[in-house]
Amino acid sequence: MRSATEIQKLIEEQIAGITYSHPAPGLFEPIAYILSLGGKRLRPVLTAMACEIFSNEVTPSLAPAVGLELFHNFTLLHDDLMDRADKRRGKLTVHKKWNDNTAILSGDALHVLSLEYILQAPPQALREVLELFTRTAMEVCAGQQFDMEFEQRMDVTKEEYLEMIRLKTAVLLACCLKTGALIGGADSNDADALYRFGINIGLAFQLKDDLLDVYADTAKFGKNIGGDILCNKKTYLLISALELAEGKTKIQLLEQLKRDPVSEAERADKIAKVTAIYNQLGLKGCIEQTMNDYYKAAILCLSGMTVNKERLTVLSQLATDLMYRES
Amino acid sequence: MRSATEIQKLIEEQIAGITYSHPAPGLFEPIAYILSLGGKRLRPVLTAMACEIFSNEVTPSLAPAVGLELFHNFTLLHDDLMDRADKRRGKLTVHKKWNDNTAILSGDALHVLSLEYILQAPPQALREVLELFTRTAMEVCAGQQFDMEFEQRMDVTKEEYLEMIRLKTAVLLACCLKTGALIGGADSNDADALYRFGINIGLAFQLKDDLLDVYADTAKFGKNIGGDILCNKKTYLLISALELAEGKTKIQLLEQLKRDPVSEAERADKIAKVTAIYNQLGLKGCIEQTMNDYYKAAILCLSGMTVNKERLTVLSQLATDLMYRES
Repeated sequence: MRSATEIQKLIEEQIAGITYSHPAPGLFEPIAYILSLGGKRLRPVLTAMACEIFSNEVTPSLAPAVGLELFHNFTLLHDDLMDRADKRRGKLTVHKKWNDNTAILSGDALHVLSLEYILQAPPQALREVLELFTRTAMEVCAGQQFDMEFEQRMDVTKEEYLEMIRLKTAVLLACCLKTGALIGGADSNDADALYRFGINIGLAFQLKDDLLDVYADTAKFGKNIGGDILCNKKTYLLISALELAEGKTKIQLLEQLKRDPVSEAERADKIAKVTAIYNQLGLKGCIEQTMNDYYKAAILCLSGMTVNKERLTVLSQLATDLMYRES
Repeated sequence: MRSATEIQKLIEEQIAGITYSHPAPGLFEPIAYILSLGGKRLRPVLTAMACEIFSNEVTPSLAPAVGLELFHNFTLLHDDLMDRADKRRGKLTVHKKWNDNTAILSGDALHVLSLEYILQAPPQALREVLELFTRTAMEVCAGQQFDMEFEQRMDVTKEEYLEMIRLKTAVLLACCLKTGALIGGADSNDADALYRFGINIGLAFQLKDDLLDVYADTAKFGKNIGGDILCNKKTYLLISALELAEGKTKIQLLEQLKRDPVSEAERADKIAKVTAIYNQLGLKGCIEQTMNDYYKAAILCLSGMTVNKERLTVLSQLATDLMYRES
């Protein structure tokens, strides 16, 4: 069994070798740019890992794995535009480096390109892989829709938030795992168990993201702490705080949400005050608990599988790494 | 053989029966809206017609035909946003009725939905249908890219323009025909001949569009004459005029292009003056000639096919109707 690092290297080689079926440079420069921003390549790594677990090989899954990474990057490109985000991984987003129309159209082309790669799934798995992919793609769109709608609401519940991140984040991770399993020839019981593993890991992964924004070690995090707090993003932390806070604390929290700090000092003050409220409510421990429940549920999914358990340690290890990551 | 009108009715029934696999109303209301704006449903009609020519039935092609119509509507939705168009078929465009983000995201969901329907192609044709679809989708993106780039240029050649409209318009019509042929069990010679028929008809179709903008009968056209002239759109007419005009005429044309008329009278004056230049250069006859050459080339494609020629009259009749249409 290959390590995550070895598989990631194979994926990077595939991404470096992407060719474009139509030579319209204006369309592909932004695509090459967003792909060059890097990242953990978690999604295609999961696909190739799952394939290897069942078939001892990764090769037949590499093109579809890359297709799923391309789809993920397409969603990032359009989400950055819709969120008016200026930066991604410390570099300008596509709509800032070029313009809105370029982001729309090169995003659409990237969406098409993702399908070109997913189509390269072996014939016996093709239809199931494609049906899973389209269902997932539609769910990801629904997740982004709910995320945007939540911005306008102050009464989002934790259940609604969890459903939104299930759609926006978890289903794609689950789809990546199941796609690899299907290509590797897993039976439907094991393929579905990996899917559920992916959902639980995905939910835990997003809660970890929400926590890192507030509680990460600045030196290791790589981006600024408190970004979600400054833009009043409805994370699991903020939603929990709005549900739990009462009396004076609730008033203080709502006051902070009304602030739109301009200076660096004001920004730091808002982050400190909101974090203090989170601490007062004991949210960190509370959310770590929820995250751990999802982590344990994920590991439980693996235990029900018929495949040799030793083959699954790459996945449980990856899940553990994601839980304890610092960036 | 069913008439175009009968097939269009079947397509409308399919479109009316579309269900959404994920219940996010905010995502699907704009999709239902753009589909309700109607139109000739030319693309799915071509798919179903082609299928019937080779198999005597339309049913197996209906879902993929609808998928291709959905894809077409996705491109209209995003193109309207990129072009900042306010109206489509006399109604507000999606980004005007809702907002830019809604147009981006519901367009993306419509793109996914189109794939859901195309996936319903019969197993024996699925891979070839999907490969044709992704290649075509990428070409359509490239066509829109070139169209946007041409807005910034004054030196677009007729050859570049024809390549742009081949990509933006003709390849999808050709893809629709070939998809129907593949589902109907056509041999590759006949399927490719129908593809080439579609390319030629598509080019003729777009040139007819360019001509109608200037020379349509106002009473029958349904939209305002001269829209392309007012926004200096680089149509085949304007590109030909820029190539052919010399001396004083060229100076007059460039002067008109610099005008940005505000009042109704000024607008009418710009349209009249540019039309006069087109007339002076004899462009109408010239472009009708080019259009007719594509029409004849299309009919020639049909003559090389092995299928009973009588079965092809629905297509030659449709091509003739498109040539002589007045709106």
